[in-house]
Parts: sequence; structure tokens; C-alpha cells
Amino acid sequence: MPKIAIDAMGGDHAPGVVIEGALLAARELGVEIVLVGQQEVVEQELAKHSGAPNFQIVAAPQAVPMHESPSVALRKKDSSMRVGFELMKRGEADALVSAGNSGAMMAIGMFVMGRLSQVARPAILVVVPSLGKGTVIVDAGANVDCKPLHLVQFGLMGSIYAEKILGVTNPRVGVLSNGEEDSKGTELTRAANQQLAAAPVNHIGYVEGRDIFNGKVDVVVCDGFTGNVALKTMEGVASFAGEVLKGAFQKNISSKLGYVMSRSSLKQAYRRLDYAEYGGAPLIGFDGVAIIAHGGSKPPSVPQAVRPRR
Amino acid sequence: MPKIAIDAMGGDHAPGVVIEGALLAARELGVEIVLVGQQEVVEQELAKHSGAPNFQIVAAPQAVPMHESPSVALRKKDSSMRVGFELMKRGEADALVSAGNSGAMMAIGMFVMGRLSQVARPAILVVVPSLGKGTVIVDAGANVDCKPLHLVQFGLMGSIYAEKILGVTNPRVGVLSNGEEDSKGTELTRAANQQLAAAPVNHIGYVEGRDIFNGKVDVVVCDGFTGNVALKTMEGVASFAGEVLKGAFQKNISSKLGYVMSRSSLKQAYRRLDYAEYGGAPLIGFDGVAIIAHGGSKPPSVPQAVRPRR
Repeated sequence: MPKIAIDAMGGDHAPGVVIEGALLAARELGVEIVLVGQQEVVEQELAKHSGAPNFQIVAAPQAVPMHESPSVALRKKDSSMRVGFELMKRGEADALVSAGNSGAMMAIGMFVMGRLSQVARPAILVVVPSLGKGTVIVDAGANVDCKPLHLVQFGLMGSIYAEKILGVTNPRVGVLSNGEEDSKGTELTRAANQQLAAAPVNHIGYVEGRDIFNGKVDVVVCDGFTGNVALKTMEGVASFAGEVLKGAFQKNISSKLGYVMSRSSLKQAYRRLDYAEYGGAPLIGFDGVAIIAHGGSKPPSVPQAVRPRR
Repeated sequence: MPKIAIDAMGGDHAPGVVIEGALLAARELGVEIVLVGQQEVVEQELAKHSGAPNFQIVAAPQAVPMHESPSVALRKKDSSMRVGFELMKRGEADALVSAGNSGAMMAIGMFVMGRLSQVARPAILVVVPSLGKGTVIVDAGANVDCKPLHLVQFGLMGSIYAEKILGVTNPRVGVLSNGEEDSKGTELTRAANQQLAAAPVNHIGYVEGRDIFNGKVDVVVCDGFTGNVALKTMEGVASFAGEVLKGAFQKNISSKLGYVMSRSSLKQAYRRLDYAEYGGAPLIGFDGVAIIAHGGSKPPSVPQAVRPRR
């Protein structure tokens, strides 16, 4: 049975929501869970749930706040993140899941686990919903300043992930740009686009922001600044559109009834659009399995981050 | 009565849709319209509409295709864009509207009209829907490689636009970044963020992709590469979510009835979310008024691009 370490102290709603999520994960998935965090706090939270399984707790007295700088976080020897990574390093956990500070996750992961040989820069990989099987975006925020080689490696790693984990045959890899013509983009994207053409991936050239969703591409390659802006823009649009639609359904008696009649189909649609359903974001390029659950994670997103994809 | 030149040959669906749009604009807004394009083609299109007003047509034998490089487009002395800008230059039109190639618009506008004194780089300004009065994004795609000074000027111009055109008092200006802390971002965003703090605008520091929609910021400043990626990502999410919702309503009898009952409120919501309703994108920093209508423009978006905001 795979053994998953969960950082009980990571995320906007830790530890309560994380522990609810851990309980869900233990129930829904055949995995063994180790909670890493402040012993007493974790025990108190667990005590709120009658019939909670007897989770192993590994004590880690310090927590890493969401906006702490990675260099400060790295100096904490007893943070739940650090202790979690060390468990994995010693082989006492197969993977680590945290909804915490992703910059700190990268830094501590890099320090404790090290990179895979030949990988220049680990990155954050995110799968977003699309008209296809979902689209992989690498880098989703770890590396702000990138060189063409980094983007080429993001493409390679993303392609392997799409094939092995999402089950996409011969994944199409594109470089995110501001237009389809090779002359568009920045110096970085032009060089990466050229070098990817010679790499052992199914390179389809430049793609644009809208292609992330239309099923035209399986792996979108970009630097972490651009990836982060694109992802947060998606979240923003989705939550804005959700607000506007909610308002529309509440407008009058007819629209309220309309909502009731279409509710079950709409809920399915919402799940298809919901970020959290697509699970956590793996840090790729490390010698280990570390998954970042969404910082504002609700309990159901914890099992999504834990479970193996399909 | 303001006199608006419309590039009849510009856009994915030119000239048919552009001319339909021009007819709508003439009917809805008190403006005089001059159509610029291939005389015969424009006349044939107009002939399809019985009772069409007697538009002035200014002949321009060449068209600029959507993906033509700006430098090639610039060499065409008789393109509808070029002739349109020249009309404005001579004072025979107060503004030019085109749904065509935005790179070519920038290049030809720059050549014919020139920049406003002290503006280093004209830019494309877009207003997107938000929980507030709409959010200004500058630059939405004109300048891929920017210096901090350019971003500072985008912030100044965007602030003036938000105040004078959208009616926002003391507009909040933020630099688009991958996090809120000043230490985040690229070299470019950090320098621009610092310099904007000393500029005569209501600078609020860094903002993130999701803030574009939540009413927290009025003017979002970024380079044209990032702006383009963010905008096209928005379009992509919106159209994907639209598809998924459409599917949800078509799912079964109950959801179909539900749609019928909520249709009128949903249509209002859709208009609030629809890009085209927010009108064209002005090129700012030129000595003239040039508006880019969305390339995939439907007829109603032409009057939206022509009309003065509120």
C-alpha cells in the first residue's frame, strides 16, 4: 500500500481542511497516510472526527506560512515540509502532499531530494481542464527567469507526464506565445521553439492562450512567470463567470426554477470546469514525488492530489 | 457629427460583417461613417442591404491580410488601413476603426500619425469585464520587449483612460506579476513597480492574474507578450466554459426546460461576460484615435468599437 505523507500545516485553511481531506483520502483511496505537523494541533483536529482512523503522526514543530520567502523557510529544520521531504528521502513515505507555500516546497524539495540527473530546473506541472483530456502546463510558477534549455526540458517532462499519467498517445507539445507565426514571441520563446523542433517530442510550434482549452495541444510550455499569470487569469475568469451566473440564476422566480431544473447537469459541468477536480500540481524534475495541492484547497481536493490519475 | 472611418477590408469576416456592423453603428449612434476599401466589393456588399444609407466610400485597392507581417503591410501605399489613417491625418475623419491585423495597425498608425510627444511606445489598451467597472489592460499585445519606462507610461496612459473614459475616480494601477510581494516578478516588473510608485498615479503595487476580474484594480500594466497571453487565456476559458455549459443545458429534458426558464437572465449574464460588448481596443499613445475591433468581430461589436463609452 503506497504511503503518502501529508503536510498537515500547509495551506490557507490548514490544519482543519487538510485533515478533513486526509480523512477523505484514506476512505476513498487505498493508501496509508502519515500526517506531518504540530503533534497536539493535529491530534486536536483528528479528535473532532469520530471514527477517524489511527493515522501515524510525525511531529514537526514549525510551519511554513504561505508568504514566507523560500530562503527563510529553508532555514527551518523542523518545518512540516522539511520533515515530510526527509521522510520521503529516508524511504518512509512514497510521496509528499502539501497545500502550502509552493516556493518553499520547491526550495526544500531541491535541498532535500535533489534534482534528477540531467534536469537543469525542476518545475511545477499543472493539468487544467480542456475540451480534450486536459492540458499540461509547465512551468506553472517555479522558475521566473528561464533559458531556452529549461523550456525544452519542461516540454520533455510534460510530454512524458501526459503520456504516462494522462494516457495521451504522442502528446502535442507547444510553446505558449502571443501568436502562431514563428516570428512572434520573445527571444526566449523563439529559441525554445526552435530547439524543441529538434527534441524527441511531438512539437507543434507556437500555441496561444486560447489553445490551452480547445484541445489543440496537450503540453503547453512556458516560463514560470507566464504560466503563473495564465493560471491565475483562468482562476479569475472562472470565479468571475461563476459569480455572474449565480446572480443570473437568482434574478427572478423563473430563473430560480430554471436553476433547480438544470441543477444536476450544471453541477456535473461545474465539476468538469473545477480546478480542484484536476488534482494537485506535481513538482517535476525532483528525485521524489511531491504534489502541491491548491493553496485555497477545499477538503475534496486533498484526495484529488493524493490519488493516482486514472 | 463625428466622422468615423471604418476599414471595410479588415478582420476575419470582412467585408460582410464589417459592413453589417457599419450599418448598425450608423443606425444606433449619431455618427457619420466613411467606408474605406475596395470600391466594387464595398458597393456590392452595401447593395445586399435594402435601405442602406448613402455611405461615403473612399477607395483603397489593397487589403492587409490578418497574418501579414507589419513591415510588409507598411509597404502597401493603397491599403484600406493606410488610406484610413491618411484620412484621419488630413482631418477628414475623427477616428479609424478596423477589425484587421493589429500589428499592421500599430505600424501604419505609427508611420502615418506619429506618437504623442514624450510617449516612447504606443500600446494597445483593452477593457475587460470585471466585478467593478471593467479593468483596463495595457499593453494588450503591441510591445513584446519592454523597458520599465514603457510600463510606467502604460500605467499613466491607462490611468488617464480609466478616469476620462470609464469614469473611475483615482484609478488603482497595478503591475501584473506572479505574486503580491515586491520580491516577486521579473527584472522588468520589479523595476516598473518601483518606478510607478513615484509616478503621478494611484499605484497599488503588484497584482495577480485573478485580480483582473475581482474589482481590486482598475489598470493592469504589463508587457505586450504577457498581456496577450492573459487576454487569449481569458477568451479560451470563456469559450470553453460556454461549451461545457451549453452541453449541460442540452443534457436532458429537465435541463433543457431549466434553460428555457432562465434564458433571459442568462443572456444578460452572457452580455456582461462577453468581450465584444466591451468594445474595441484603442491604440494609445498615437496622435489620433484608432480602434481595433476584435478580429473575429460579429456585427454588433462594430458599433461597440465606434461608440463613445457611456
